[in-house]
Amino acid sequence: MHIRFTKMQGAGNDFVVLDETQARLGLNAAQYRFLADRHFGVGADQILTVRPSPAPGLDFEYVIHNADGGEVEHCGNGARCFVRYVRDKGLTDKTTVHVKVQQGEIELHMNPDGRVTVNMGAPVFDWERVPFNPMGLISDQVNGWPVFDLALGAQGIARVGVVSMGNPHAVQRVDDVDTFPVLAQGPLIENHPAFPKRVNAGFMQIVSRKQIKLRVFERGAGETLACGTGACAAVVAGIRQGWLDSRVDVQARGGVLTIEWAGQADSPVLMTGPATSVFEGSIEVPDTLS
Amino acid sequence: MHIRFTKMQGAGNDFVVLDETQARLGLNAAQYRFLADRHFGVGADQILTVRPSPAPGLDFEYVIHNADGGEVEHCGNGARCFVRYVRDKGLTDKTTVHVKVQQGEIELHMNPDGRVTVNMGAPVFDWERVPFNPMGLISDQVNGWPVFDLALGAQGIARVGVVSMGNPHAVQRVDDVDTFPVLAQGPLIENHPAFPKRVNAGFMQIVSRKQIKLRVFERGAGETLACGTGACAAVVAGIRQGWLDSRVDVQARGGVLTIEWAGQADSPVLMTGPATSVFEGSIEVPDTLS
Repeated sequence: MHIRFTKMQGAGNDFVVLDETQARLGLNAAQYRFLADRHFGVGADQILTVRPSPAPGLDFEYVIHNADGGEVEHCGNGARCFVRYVRDKGLTDKTTVHVKVQQGEIELHMNPDGRVTVNMGAPVFDWERVPFNPMGLISDQVNGWPVFDLALGAQGIARVGVVSMGNPHAVQRVDDVDTFPVLAQGPLIENHPAFPKRVNAGFMQIVSRKQIKLRVFERGAGETLACGTGACAAVVAGIRQGWLDSRVDVQARGGVLTIEWAGQADSPVLMTGPATSVFEGSIEVPDTLS
Repeated sequence: MHIRFTKMQGAGNDFVVLDETQARLGLNAAQYRFLADRHFGVGADQILTVRPSPAPGLDFEYVIHNADGGEVEHCGNGARCFVRYVRDKGLTDKTTVHVKVQQGEIELHMNPDGRVTVNMGAPVFDWERVPFNPMGLISDQVNGWPVFDLALGAQGIARVGVVSMGNPHAVQRVDDVDTFPVLAQGPLIENHPAFPKRVNAGFMQIVSRKQIKLRVFERGAGETLACGTGACAAVVAGIRQGWLDSRVDVQARGGVLTIEWAGQADSPVLMTGPATSVFEGSIEVPDTLS
């Protein structure tokens, strides 16, 4: 099957974007893996597929497949690329777009400066919905918010705040994010038994009340250059623990994201950042992959 | 500047291929780096640029730029992709193609099965031409061929055979290539002071007299899935030390290459392997990069 695609990136988190607004391509998991492979395919952290509106009041739907071929919850960087895509391709001329993603509906806004603001919804602290099972974990409170100690064997203990931004995050504060053993701890946190659907592991260094540095080890993808929901989760965790103001610039390896959260449990998290179309391409996807 | 490109791979060693047969693109080192970047550009181990014949008797010229932006000697996997490219694009209908590369001229042959055979030229054992400065190194002989002990600090000693296949290689035999600390030793060998232009570091496990497993840490590129000249250098080093027959299948991480060498100093090394066009694309290369 020969398909056309657009390669995009938001803060270095990169996507192969596919257009299914006219017809389904019907790719299987192996074919998504092929597209994501950086040597034998196109290469990307994730595959983002745009589909037509599934219901009145919505403009589009999109789904995201990870580099391991599985479908995953939406990622904030992908949301920004999605908006650039549907506008660049002339699929809509709206500046505010409503879209269905796997875990619900989100609202996206194109700014005059070309950056995109994503209403990421309110953070979820209900452990069952994260999902997170704190049974048996040692916990403490920082500024009235519970944090948990995850035992990581030879890697010691990770003290994390837990929050869902549509996907689960465990965020810890570190002194120096550049030298921290993210690649050693990442898989241990990701697969810790307290998280029945695994978890994204965030590592944040607080520079000031308005700025953090962040690395994220993503489920099924390993460390990526910038994780949008990870930036939201880190800022929410930092605000809950009293370390951060309500508007924070997050310096990830791939670029800067601005995160805003008013601090009430039902306040939405707003994420603003760049999204860029890198190149256009067409590829023959082997039909025999499975 | 907007340019078209073809993404290709040979045994997993991947290339952005550019056509300069009609006009030079005039890319600078930063623009090559941009193209090679896997998140912000197209992504590849190397950029291969095809140019018209520079002299009678030659069909083409090509140059290769590494992911770090510098121009390098040719790589066997690139040579195979080059042949597929000029034939697939209708730039020639010959089955044997003569081409100028940075370090001389090579002859390439398209087989009926689609694999490409590259006459890689005779191996070079003249230390000055490698270039290699063995002064002060402890040396020994295996089957009458000199091998050298490189001191690698905490990584111990690497006993290597040294040969140039147009680019310098230091090859050592290891018991289990999958578990060997290639990423730790690679940079130390690459930058060892005995090699004034640095060196590619090969790690070979001998499976039988007709089969080896190989990993290569390439200058300026890190470990790649398969290095064509590295496969040649490993088989030559193995034959010189009496461990291998004259025709050997080299299992690299990205696929299998067949290497043939008759064993005389002036015998050419023949490499046969796959080459595949993965996708076609077009990209805006920022003019401001420098």
